[in-house]
Amino acid sequence: MELYEKTLSSETIYDGKIIRLTRDEIELPNGHHSIREVVGHPGGACAAAVDAGGNLLMVEQYRYPMGETTLEIPAGKLEHGEDPASAVARELREETGRTADSIEFLGVTYPTPGYCAEKLYLYLATGLHEGQQDLDADENLRVRLVPLRDAVRMVERNELKDGKTVTAILLAARRFGL
Amino acid sequence: MELYEKTLSSETIYDGKIIRLTRDEIELPNGHHSIREVVGHPGGACAAAVDAGGNLLMVEQYRYPMGETTLEIPAGKLEHGEDPASAVARELREETGRTADSIEFLGVTYPTPGYCAEKLYLYLATGLHEGQQDLDADENLRVRLVPLRDAVRMVERNELKDGKTVTAILLAARRFGL
Repeated sequence: MELYEKTLSSETIYDGKIIRLTRDEIELPNGHHSIREVVGHPGGACAAAVDAGGNLLMVEQYRYPMGETTLEIPAGKLEHGEDPASAVARELREETGRTADSIEFLGVTYPTPGYCAEKLYLYLATGLHEGQQDLDADENLRVRLVPLRDAVRMVERNELKDGKTVTAILLAARRFGL
Repeated sequence: MELYEKTLSSETIYDGKIIRLTRDEIELPNGHHSIREVVGHPGGACAAAVDAGGNLLMVEQYRYPMGETTLEIPAGKLEHGEDPASAVARELREETGRTADSIEFLGVTYPTPGYCAEKLYLYLATGLHEGQQDLDADENLRVRLVPLRDAVRMVERNELKDGKTVTAILLAARRFGL
Protein backbone atom coordinates (compact mmCIF):
# COMPACT_ATOMS: atom_id res chain seq x y z
CA MET A 1 0.00 0.00 0.00
CA GLU A 2 1.30 3.39 -1.07
CA LEU A 3 0.67 6.28 1.36
CA TYR A 4 1.65 9.32 -0.74
CA GLU A 5 -0.93 12.07 -1.31
CA LYS A 6 -0.60 14.08 -4.52
CA THR A 7 -1.44 17.79 -4.74
CA LEU A 8 -4.05 18.51 -7.42
CA SER A 9 -4.58 22.20 -6.65
CA SER A 10 -3.68 24.66 -3.90
CA GLU A 11 -5.60 27.78 -2.92
CA THR A 12 -4.04 30.41 -0.64
CA ILE A 13 -6.72 31.48 1.84
CA TYR A 14 -4.56 33.79 3.97
CA ASP A 15 -0.97 35.00 4.00
CA GLY A 16 -0.33 36.79 7.26
CA LYS A 17 2.24 38.01 9.74
CA ILE A 18 3.25 34.60 11.07
CA ILE A 19 1.10 31.97 9.42
CA ARG A 20 -0.24 31.17 6.00
CA LEU A 21 -3.29 29.05 5.24
CA THR A 22 -3.79 27.00 2.09
CA ARG A 23 -6.63 24.70 1.10
CA ASP A 24 -5.37 21.94 -1.16
CA GLU A 25 -7.25 19.37 -3.16
CA ILE A 26 -5.32 16.11 -3.10
CA GLU A 27 -5.46 12.65 -4.63
CA LEU A 28 -5.28 9.72 -2.25
CA PRO A 29 -3.45 6.47 -3.09
CA ASN A 30 -6.82 4.86 -3.90
CA GLY A 31 -7.56 7.58 -6.47
CA HIS A 32 -10.18 9.37 -4.35
CA HIS A 33 -9.94 13.13 -3.89
CA SER A 34 -9.90 14.94 -0.55
CA ILE A 35 -9.18 18.36 0.98
CA ARG A 36 -6.17 19.19 3.14
CA GLU A 37 -6.17 22.43 5.10
CA VAL A 38 -2.54 23.37 5.72
CA VAL A 39 -1.14 26.04 8.02
CA GLY A 40 2.23 27.25 6.77
CA HIS A 41 4.76 28.39 9.39
CA PRO A 42 8.44 29.42 9.11
CA GLY A 43 9.52 26.93 11.80
CA GLY A 44 10.81 27.58 15.27
CA ALA A 45 13.60 26.89 17.71
CA CYS A 46 13.64 26.52 21.50
CA ALA A 47 16.16 25.81 24.21
CA ALA A 48 16.23 24.03 27.54
CA ALA A 49 18.83 26.38 29.02
CA VAL A 50 20.33 25.05 32.24
CA ASP A 51 22.66 27.15 34.41
CA ALA A 52 25.61 25.98 36.51
CA GLY A 53 23.30 25.55 39.52
CA GLY A 54 21.03 23.12 37.61
CA ASN A 55 18.26 25.69 37.12
CA LEU A 56 16.15 25.73 33.97
CA LEU A 57 15.46 29.15 32.47
CA MET A 58 11.76 29.58 31.85
CA VAL A 59 9.54 32.37 30.60
CA GLU A 60 6.04 33.11 31.81
CA GLN A 61 3.86 34.65 29.12
CA TYR A 62 0.26 35.14 28.10
CA ARG A 63 -0.76 32.81 25.29
CA TYR A 64 -3.67 34.52 23.61
CA PRO A 65 -5.04 31.45 21.74
CA MET A 66 -5.24 29.52 25.04
CA GLY A 67 -6.56 32.46 27.07
CA GLU A 68 -4.05 31.76 29.81
CA THR A 69 -0.51 32.35 31.06
CA THR A 70 1.95 29.51 30.50
CA LEU A 71 5.42 28.68 31.75
CA GLU A 72 7.62 27.71 28.80
CA ILE A 73 11.23 27.45 27.72
CA PRO A 74 12.56 30.32 25.57
CA ALA A 75 11.53 29.91 21.93
CA GLY A 76 10.78 31.79 18.78
CA LYS A 77 10.17 31.46 15.11
CA LEU A 78 12.91 31.35 12.51
CA GLU A 79 13.60 34.53 10.59
CA HIS A 80 13.72 34.09 6.81
CA GLY A 81 16.63 31.78 5.94
CA GLU A 82 17.87 31.69 9.54
CA ASP A 83 19.74 28.65 10.85
CA PRO A 84 17.82 27.12 13.83
CA ALA A 85 20.92 27.11 16.08
CA SER A 86 21.41 30.85 15.42
CA ALA A 87 17.72 31.47 16.02
CA VAL A 88 17.78 29.75 19.38
CA ALA A 89 20.83 31.75 20.53
CA ARG A 90 19.08 34.95 19.41
CA GLU A 91 15.80 34.09 21.16
CA LEU A 92 17.58 33.07 24.35
CA ARG A 93 19.35 36.43 24.43
CA GLU A 94 16.27 38.47 23.49
CA GLU A 95 13.89 36.77 25.93
CA THR A 96 16.19 36.14 28.90
CA GLY A 97 19.35 38.19 28.27
CA ARG A 98 21.47 35.02 28.45
CA THR A 99 24.18 33.86 26.07
CA ALA A 100 25.38 30.24 26.10
CA ASP A 101 28.85 28.72 25.64
CA SER A 102 27.31 25.47 24.41
CA ILE A 103 24.17 24.92 22.33
CA GLU A 104 23.59 21.23 21.67
CA PHE A 105 20.95 19.86 19.28
CA LEU A 106 18.37 17.63 20.96
CA GLY A 107 16.17 16.97 17.95
CA VAL A 108 13.51 18.33 15.63
CA THR A 109 9.81 17.77 16.25
CA TYR A 110 6.61 18.33 14.31
CA PRO A 111 4.10 19.83 16.77
CA THR A 112 0.98 19.26 14.63
CA PRO A 113 1.91 17.39 11.42
CA GLY A 114 -1.74 16.72 10.55
CA TYR A 115 -2.51 20.31 9.61
CA CYS A 116 0.58 22.49 10.10
CA ALA A 117 4.00 22.39 8.46
CA GLU A 118 5.89 23.79 11.45
CA LYS A 119 9.18 22.13 12.34
CA LEU A 120 10.48 22.94 15.79
CA TYR A 121 14.18 22.54 16.62
CA LEU A 122 15.05 21.69 20.25
CA TYR A 123 18.36 22.51 21.91
CA LEU A 124 20.12 22.17 25.23
CA ALA A 125 21.98 25.36 26.18
CA THR A 126 24.61 25.37 28.93
CA GLY A 127 27.48 27.62 30.05
CA LEU A 128 25.11 30.57 30.50
CA HIS A 129 26.13 34.22 30.96
CA GLU A 130 23.74 36.94 32.06
CA GLY A 131 23.14 40.00 29.89
CA GLN A 132 20.42 42.35 28.73
CA GLN A 133 16.88 41.27 27.68
CA ASP A 134 15.73 42.68 24.33
CA LEU A 135 12.01 41.95 23.79
CA ASP A 136 9.90 42.55 20.69
CA ALA A 137 7.45 45.44 20.97
CA ASP A 138 4.45 43.12 21.49
CA GLU A 139 6.21 40.57 23.69
CA ASN A 140 5.61 40.58 27.45
CA LEU A 141 7.22 37.94 29.58
CA ARG A 142 8.68 37.22 32.98
CA VAL A 143 11.83 35.16 33.35
CA ARG A 144 11.75 32.38 35.97
CA LEU A 145 14.50 30.08 37.22
CA VAL A 146 13.22 26.60 38.06
CA PRO A 147 15.50 23.77 39.24
CA LEU A 148 15.46 21.22 36.38
CA ARG A 149 14.62 18.52 38.93
CA ASP A 150 11.51 20.48 39.94
CA ALA A 151 10.59 21.10 36.30
CA VAL A 152 10.59 17.33 35.73
CA ARG A 153 8.23 16.90 38.69
CA MET A 154 6.02 19.67 37.24
CA VAL A 155 5.87 17.75 33.95
CA GLU A 156 4.92 14.53 35.78
CA ARG A 157 2.15 16.41 37.62
CA ASN A 158 1.01 17.99 34.29
CA GLU A 159 1.61 21.49 35.66
CA LEU A 160 3.46 22.43 32.46
CA LYS A 161 1.29 22.27 29.35
CA ASP A 162 3.38 23.66 26.50
CA GLY A 163 4.35 20.77 24.21
CA LYS A 164 7.91 21.83 23.32
CA THR A 165 8.62 22.61 26.99
CA VAL A 166 7.49 19.17 28.14
CA THR A 167 9.48 17.42 25.39
CA ALA A 168 12.66 19.41 25.99
CA ILE A 169 12.50 18.92 29.76
CA LEU A 170 12.02 15.18 29.39
CA LEU A 171 14.89 14.92 26.88
CA ALA A 172 17.15 17.07 29.10
CA ALA A 173 16.17 14.94 32.14
CA ARG A 174 17.43 11.83 30.35
CA ARG A 175 20.75 13.57 29.59
CA PHE A 176 21.16 14.63 33.22
CA GLY A 177 19.98 11.26 34.58
CA LEU A 178 17.00 12.82 36.39
CA MET B 1 3.45 43.52 35.34
CA GLU B 2 0.16 42.29 33.96
CA LEU B 3 0.38 39.82 31.04
CA TYR B 4 -3.26 39.63 29.90
CA GLU B 5 -4.12 40.54 26.30
CA LYS B 6 -7.60 41.91 25.67
CA THR B 7 -9.57 41.20 22.47
CA LEU B 8 -10.64 44.40 20.70
CA SER B 9 -12.06 42.79 17.54
CA SER B 10 -12.06 39.37 15.88
CA GLU B 11 -12.39 38.66 12.17
CA THR B 12 -13.08 35.11 10.93
CA ILE B 13 -10.86 34.51 7.90
CA TYR B 14 -11.74 30.86 7.33
CA ASP B 15 -14.06 28.27 8.86
CA GLY B 16 -13.19 24.89 7.42
CA LYS B 17 -13.39 21.14 7.81
CA ILE B 18 -10.94 20.85 10.70
CA ILE B 19 -9.54 24.29 11.45
CA ARG B 20 -10.77 27.84 11.73
CA LEU B 21 -8.67 30.96 11.35
CA THR B 22 -9.36 34.28 13.04
CA ARG B 23 -7.40 37.50 12.97
CA ASP B 24 -7.86 39.43 16.20
CA GLU B 25 -6.84 42.90 17.15
CA ILE B 26 -5.75 42.94 20.78
CA GLU B 27 -4.67 45.39 23.44
CA LEU B 28 -1.41 44.67 25.24
CA PRO B 29 -0.88 45.40 28.95
CA ASN B 30 1.03 48.58 27.98
CA GLY B 31 -1.99 49.83 25.99
CA HIS B 32 -0.44 49.20 22.57
CA HIS B 33 -2.45 47.34 19.94
CA SER B 34 -1.29 44.25 18.07
CA ILE B 35 -2.61 41.47 15.83
CA ARG B 36 -2.98 37.82 16.86
CA GLU B 37 -3.57 35.20 14.18
CA VAL B 38 -5.33 32.27 15.84
CA VAL B 39 -6.00 28.82 14.45
CA GLY B 40 -9.05 27.26 16.05
CA HIS B 41 -9.08 23.48 16.46
CA PRO B 42 -11.54 21.12 18.26
CA GLY B 43 -8.74 19.48 20.28
CA GLY B 44 -7.37 15.97 20.06
CA ALA B 45 -6.56 12.84 21.98
CA CYS B 46 -3.81 10.24 21.58
CA ALA B 47 -2.69 7.06 23.29
CA ALA B 48 0.56 5.31 24.01
CA ALA B 49 -0.99 1.84 23.80
CA VAL B 50 1.30 -0.86 25.18
CA ASP B 51 0.47 -4.58 24.85
CA ALA B 52 1.27 -7.38 27.30
CA GLY B 53 4.58 -8.01 25.51
CA GLY B 54 5.75 -4.43 26.06
CA ASN B 55 5.12 -3.38 22.45
CA LEU B 56 3.92 0.11 21.57
CA LEU B 57 1.20 0.33 18.92
CA MET B 58 2.20 2.80 16.24
CA VAL B 59 0.69 3.96 12.96
CA GLU B 60 2.64 4.91 9.87
CA GLN B 61 0.89 7.53 7.78
CA TYR B 62 1.52 10.20 5.20
CA ARG B 63 1.48 13.70 6.68
CA TYR B 64 0.63 15.98 3.81
CA PRO B 65 1.80 19.27 5.44
CA MET B 66 5.24 17.73 6.09
CA GLY B 67 5.47 15.95 2.71
CA GLU B 68 6.59 12.78 4.41
CA THR B 69 5.51 9.59 6.14
CA THR B 70 5.70 9.58 9.93
CA LEU B 71 5.47 6.94 12.64
CA GLU B 72 3.09 8.13 15.36
CA ILE B 73 0.91 6.85 18.16
CA PRO B 74 -2.83 6.55 17.40
CA ALA B 75 -4.57 9.91 17.65
CA GLY B 76 -7.47 11.92 16.38
CA LYS B 77 -9.46 15.03 16.87
CA LEU B 78 -12.39 15.31 19.25
CA GLU B 79 -15.87 15.10 17.80
CA HIS B 80 -18.21 17.89 18.89
CA GLY B 81 -18.71 17.65 22.67
CA GLU B 82 -16.80 14.39 22.91
CA ASP B 83 -14.95 13.48 26.10
CA PRO B 84 -11.19 13.05 25.36
CA ALA B 85 -11.06 9.61 27.05
CA SER B 86 -13.92 8.41 24.82
CA ALA B 87 -12.24 9.92 21.77
CA VAL B 88 -8.99 8.11 22.44
CA ALA B 89 -10.76 4.76 22.84
CA ARG B 90 -12.62 5.40 19.58
CA GLU B 91 -9.45 6.40 17.67
CA LEU B 92 -7.52 3.43 19.02
CA ARG B 93 -10.23 1.08 17.80
CA GLU B 94 -10.70 2.82 14.42
CA GLU B 95 -6.99 3.11 13.60
CA THR B 96 -5.65 -0.14 15.05
CA GLY B 97 -8.68 -2.33 15.81
CA ARG B 98 -7.64 -2.53 19.49
CA THR B 99 -9.77 -2.01 22.57
CA ALA B 100 -8.13 -1.38 25.97
CA ASP B 101 -9.09 -2.55 29.48
CA SER B 102 -7.32 0.48 31.00
CA ILE B 103 -7.01 4.03 29.66
CA GLU B 104 -5.00 6.21 32.04
CA PHE B 105 -4.64 9.99 31.67
CA LEU B 106 -1.03 11.14 31.23
CA GLY B 107 -1.68 14.84 30.77
CA VAL B 108 -2.87 17.57 28.44
CA THR B 109 -0.46 19.51 26.23
CA TYR B 110 -0.68 22.60 24.04
CA PRO B 111 1.21 21.75 20.83
CA THR B 112 1.51 25.34 19.54
CA PRO B 113 0.05 27.79 22.06
CA GLY B 114 1.48 30.81 20.25
CA TYR B 115 -0.93 30.62 17.32
CA CYS B 116 -3.26 27.63 17.77
CA ALA B 117 -5.84 26.82 20.44
CA GLU B 118 -5.50 23.04 20.16
CA LYS B 119 -5.40 21.07 23.40
CA LEU B 120 -4.13 17.53 23.06
CA TYR B 121 -4.99 14.89 25.69
CA LEU B 122 -2.44 12.10 26.22
CA TYR B 123 -3.29 8.65 27.56
CA LEU B 124 -1.63 5.35 28.38
CA ALA B 125 -3.69 2.39 27.17
CA THR B 126 -3.02 -1.14 28.44
CA GLY B 127 -4.85 -4.46 28.54
CA LEU B 128 -5.26 -4.48 24.75
CA HIS B 129 -7.56 -6.77 22.74
CA GLU B 130 -7.36 -7.15 18.98
CA GLY B 131 -10.35 -6.39 16.78
CA GLN B 132 -11.31 -4.84 13.48
CA GLN B 133 -9.80 -1.60 12.07
CA ASP B 134 -12.37 0.97 10.87
CA LEU B 135 -10.67 3.81 9.00
CA ASP B 136 -12.16 7.06 7.72
CA ALA B 137 -12.57 7.24 3.92
CA ASP B 138 -9.50 9.48 3.48
CA GLU B 139 -7.32 7.82 6.12
CA ASN B 140 -4.51 5.49 5.01
CA LEU B 141 -2.25 4.00 7.59
CA ARG B 142 -0.19 0.96 8.47
CA VAL B 143 -0.14 -0.38 12.02
CA ARG B 144 3.31 -1.20 13.47
CA LEU B 145 4.29 -2.87 16.74
CA VAL B 146 7.48 -1.42 18.23
CA PRO B 147 8.92 -2.56 21.57
CA LEU B 148 8.50 0.45 23.90
CA ARG B 149 12.19 0.12 24.81
CA ASP B 150 13.11 0.52 21.11
CA ALA B 151 10.71 3.45 20.71
CA VAL B 152 12.55 5.25 23.53
CA ARG B 153 15.87 4.68 21.70
CA MET B 154 14.23 6.00 18.50
CA VAL B 155 13.21 9.17 20.37
CA GLU B 156 16.76 9.60 21.70
CA ARG B 157 18.14 9.23 18.16
CA ASN B 158 15.47 11.70 16.86
CA GLU B 159 14.05 9.07 14.52
CA LEU B 160 10.53 9.91 15.68
CA LYS B 161 9.49 13.47 14.89
CA ASP B 162 5.83 13.77 15.83
CA GLY B 163 5.57 15.91 18.97
CA LYS B 164 2.75 14.07 20.77
CA THR B 165 4.42 10.72 20.02
CA VAL B 166 7.75 11.84 21.52
CA THR B 167 6.03 13.28 24.59
CA ALA B 168 3.84 10.24 25.22
CA ILE B 169 6.74 7.80 24.77
CA LEU B 170 8.92 9.75 27.19
CA LEU B 171 6.10 9.94 29.76
CA ALA B 172 5.33 6.23 29.34
CA ALA B 173 9.05 5.42 29.65
CA ARG B 174 9.12 7.11 33.06
CA ARG B 175 6.10 5.05 34.18
CA PHE B 176 7.73 1.82 33.04
CA GLY B 177 11.16 2.77 34.40
CA LEU B 178 12.79 2.67 30.94
